[in-house]
Parts: sequence; C-alpha cells; structure tokens
Amino acid sequence: MKKAENDKGFAHKWVSYRPEIKIVDVTIRDGGLMNDHRFSDDVVRAVYRACVEGGIDYMEMGYKTAKHLAKRSDYGAWKFCDEEDLRRIVGDNRTSLKLCVMADAERCDYRDDIGPKADSVVDMVRIATYIHQIPIALDMISDAHEKGYETTVNLMAASTVPESEIEGALDLLCASPVDAVYVVDSFGSFYSEQVHYLVDKYLGFARPRGKTIGMHAHNNQQLAYANTIEAAIKGANLLDSSMAGLGRGAGNCQTELLIGFLHNPRYHLRPVLQCIQEHIEPLRKDLRWGFDIPYMITGLLNQHPRAAMAFNDGAARGDLVKFFDAMIGAE
Amino acid sequence: MKKAENDKGFAHKWVSYRPEIKIVDVTIRDGGLMNDHRFSDDVVRAVYRACVEGGIDYMEMGYKTAKHLAKRSDYGAWKFCDEEDLRRIVGDNRTSLKLCVMADAERCDYRDDIGPKADSVVDMVRIATYIHQIPIALDMISDAHEKGYETTVNLMAASTVPESEIEGALDLLCASPVDAVYVVDSFGSFYSEQVHYLVDKYLGFARPRGKTIGMHAHNNQQLAYANTIEAAIKGANLLDSSMAGLGRGAGNCQTELLIGFLHNPRYHLRPVLQCIQEHIEPLRKDLRWGFDIPYMITGLLNQHPRAAMAFNDGAARGDLVKFFDAMIGAE
Repeated sequence: MKKAENDKGFAHKWVSYRPEIKIVDVTIRDGGLMNDHRFSDDVVRAVYRACVEGGIDYMEMGYKTAKHLAKRSDYGAWKFCDEEDLRRIVGDNRTSLKLCVMADAERCDYRDDIGPKADSVVDMVRIATYIHQIPIALDMISDAHEKGYETTVNLMAASTVPESEIEGALDLLCASPVDAVYVVDSFGSFYSEQVHYLVDKYLGFARPRGKTIGMHAHNNQQLAYANTIEAAIKGANLLDSSMAGLGRGAGNCQTELLIGFLHNPRYHLRPVLQCIQEHIEPLRKDLRWGFDIPYMITGLLNQHPRAAMAFNDGAARGDLVKFFDAMIGAE
Repeated sequence: MKKAENDKGFAHKWVSYRPEIKIVDVTIRDGGLMNDHRFSDDVVRAVYRACVEGGIDYMEMGYKTAKHLAKRSDYGAWKFCDEEDLRRIVGDNRTSLKLCVMADAERCDYRDDIGPKADSVVDMVRIATYIHQIPIALDMISDAHEKGYETTVNLMAASTVPESEIEGALDLLCASPVDAVYVVDSFGSFYSEQVHYLVDKYLGFARPRGKTIGMHAHNNQQLAYANTIEAAIKGANLLDSSMAGLGRGAGNCQTELLIGFLHNPRYHLRPVLQCIQEHIEPLRKDLRWGFDIPYMITGLLNQHPRAAMAFNDGAARGDLVKFFDAMIGAE
C-alpha cells in the first residue's frame, strides 16, 4: 500500500511506503484508562525510549484533566501531565520524537492548565470531543493553536453520530486552525467498508483546507490494525497505535504490527519488541487488555465496551453465553 | 459488504448480506495440527453440534492420510477420518451441515482410501496441493469428482509462488471438474491489497468456468479475519474459519467474528459461543494457538510458522528480541 494516489501499478504501492504517514504512539495515554494512569516512571521512560529508538513520530503522554474533576491523589501523574512530570521522563526532549497530550472537551481547564508552547515539552494538543461539544472543541483548538501547539481533534464515537451531524462538524472543524481530524472508532464496530467510506468523507472536507486525516481504532472485533491499514490506504496520514495494543478494553492497533506494514525505513521494530517484552507484557496479568469475545459482542452491537469491561472484571468472566444473552436481551 | 457487484449504494452492501457466501468450519482439521489430531469424541461432537445449530455450511472433519505414512497408534482418528470414526460422531448426518475431509497431494491413498460418495457421510473432498504437485492434484480432483463428491483445491503457500506459475495452475485447475479454488495464505503474510489482487486474479480464471473462489487465512499478522472479509468483498464465496480461531500456530479466521460480519440470518452466534466456552477454550492451555509476536515475525518474513512454533515450545518463549534477532539473522 501506501501510495494512495499512485497509479504506477498495484505492487509498487505495497512494496514501497508513503513518507507522509506518521505514527502516534498512544500506549501510555490509552493504556492509562486501564490503571487510572498509574504507570511507573520506569514504564513511561521505557515507552519513551522505544518510541525514540523506533523512529515513532509522536508519543501521547496522557491527559490534561482539570484538577477540580479529579484528585491528584486518586490517579497517576499521566491523568494530568503536569510539565514537571513530563520533564522528569523526557528532560527537554532533545529527540526527533514529538510529544502530545489529550485534552477532553469539558474535562480540561485548557486556558489555565495548558501553558504556551514556548514553556512546554509538549508539541501537540489532541482535543477529544463528542458531537455535542463541537463549539467547546473549536475554542480549545483556537486556544492551543494560539499558544503555539500543533492540534488534532478526535470526534469520538463517530459510529453513533448521524452522518448529517458528522458533516456539519467536519465543515466547522476544517474551517478551524486544527491540523488534523481523526476518524475515531471508539467502540471497535467498523468494518473496512465503513472505514473507507468515512475516510473518504472526512477527506472531502479536509483536503481542500489542507488538513490531515487521522485514524484511531479499537480492537473489539480484532480489526484495529486492519482498519488502520485501510484508513492509511484511503489516505489517512496520522495513525494511532500502541505497544502490544495496550489500551482500554480490547485495546488499540498494535505499533509492532503497524511498523511491519508501513515499510518506512524510519521505523525500527526491535526497540519496540524489547519494550513490549520487558515493560508491557509484564502488565498484562493485572491490566488484562486485548481482544476477547465480550468485547467482540459490544463491538458487534456498536456499544461502549463498559459492559464487557465490567463483565470481565466480575465473577462470571468466561461465561460467554451468559454475557451474550444479557447483551442481546434474552434474559 | 457482501453484495460484491451491487451498485445500489455503499450502505446497502454492508447492511445486507450475500446468500451465496458459505462458511467452512475447519476447527477440527486445522486444529488437529496442534495436537496430532487427538480430539476427544466429546469435542468433535460439540463442534459438529455447534456447526449444525449455528447454520454453518460445511464442517471439515480432518485429513485422509495414507496409512503407510502415519501409524494409527501415533495419531488421533482425525488424521485418517475413517468412515466408522466419522459415523460415530455424525451418524448418517441427517442435517443441513455438509461434511468435508482434506486430502494432501502425495499424502493420501485416494484411490483406495476414499470410497464412493454413496457409501460415505462425506460430501466434499478438499485437495491440498503445493505448486509442484498440480498434476497429482488434478488426478485427485478427477477421482473425487467421479466418485460423486464436491471438490475444492487449496493451492498452498501462494505467497511464495511466482505469479506466472499461479496463473498456469489456475488455468489447469479451472479446466478441471473442481468446484472451488482457494486463495491460501499459509504463512499469514498477506495484506488486504494482496488479497484483493489475488482474488481478482483467481476470479479471472474461475468465473468464466463457473468455479467458486475460497479463502483460507492464517492469523500471523492478526489479519486472518480482516483478510477473509476482504476476500469476500472481492467475491470469494467459500470462507474457512474455526471456532476461537483454533488452528496451526497463529490459528485461523474466527468463526464467531465471521458470523458477525456476514449478517446472514442463517447463522447463529450463540451455539458457537457455547461450544467455544465449554469445549475449545479449555484446550488453550495445552494447545496454545493464536496470534503472538513470534508468529507476527514469521508472517512479516513470509515464512512457514515452524520456527515460531518451535520457539514458543522452547525455554526461551517470551524472549521476543531473541527470536527477532535470530530470524533477522543478527546472531
């Protein structure tokens, strides 16, 4: 793949690579949803090192959560991403890796808690918004842009939004200073045809305004990697992934798989594998992310994975038929 | 998806279904490669029941292996699929489920060991061949066809065969009485673009002769299900899958995922989930099939998974970097 608009012939496409595609590693940010953001400094530093050595383009460090919404003592540092916590890991980050943080609409005191880019190691602010929060998201985009950051906007749960509203949001977002707009498969419910359709639609608004399209997938139906590939083939250039797929519930597109597909000599698999082996896999027993059948069922039903997460944490874990019956409404 | 040639509009395609698509459950046949075909009758009967109740079209029971090549005492019954063993499970199989067996070129005494269809509960003989065995495969196709069976041919390891030879084989096979020709991703190395390309190529030979195209995928790069979908979208109508993906190494496309995608009301998920929960998942601890990073590496390198299987069975299991270095040749 990778030469989305190359007509030199099919095989040229997948033997080569598309240099404008960039990887955003979301291991610590999305994975933090499984452990209240309580990663040890060792783990965060190992992921940072692996991103640098692996040639990854961006690393998402965590959330910028308003302090009045969450107590610092109830969560790990990566729910807040205070500048001193970031610098404890990355120093002044004199590397080619760019850093980003996620700011949720209505959950971030962005005017106060996000300082000027000149004072921060953060390079990019990623604004996560539901469809009803678009005006807030637009204000957050302007704020971050004026402070000197790159910006993306993640329109969450797109699989549940009427198309006319998606189009309205895209029209507004692509008129803003945002750099990239993400197709977000929050529930891991999309198939490739839907990804193709949405990326085409998003590009229809984004391309004339010079915006990039991103893809953030979840693995509920074991399609996070496959759908990320499909988005890239259609022209998405900013791809979210995580090491060993660490992320909420069924997890994300796996960085180690994505590197294999992209064929860009900039990326190196070995440091990523080393980090997975030494720092990520040891977390699996406690965090238990990754594809399984309860997540498949919520994905199939286009529902938030919270029911599957609760089920997997409960005494009936493994009773697939019981979960299926409950979700289908048979009992 | 599913209306490969329907132009009524995109969404029609994936909200509807394509009734000509059929599922071949390969749980016992491909899974038998992980335990020398030693499944208990309980497990085989449970899979059979789940296939019947789940509306699955075909169930592959195992191999027809020549008795001079493998001793009956060294293997379970499903390496041989003697008629009395089959009937012990299925009786006269008075169900809508069709049964099949796999016959490997040069590993099956097909003239002696496959009797007339009139005397057998088997409905379809699936001939597995490497490119250098095509003349033998053609003779096996004729033999099975004359005895009254449906036939498919699986051209194995297609990812390692020069295209000109694939075309030569397709030309010969599509002139034979075979009913279906399979695209087989033996090493789990294909991406969607390659699947699209090959299904197009196979259909170019098959369609004018009224043959069906099948897809058999492996999950080395976690794309077995995704690639099976892509093959179906391109027009493949015979799809191999297994319960919980049970199969050699990284395993196969998962039946439970495939049912969700196909949307055909003929298929029922619940009996499949029940079988997985009660009979397949309990085998995982010993059989240890399924996606992992060593399989990803052999898939990426387009190699047989045997090195990954040996590594996973050895003392270094989990040392991903060691396996990577060995495969890349760094040591």
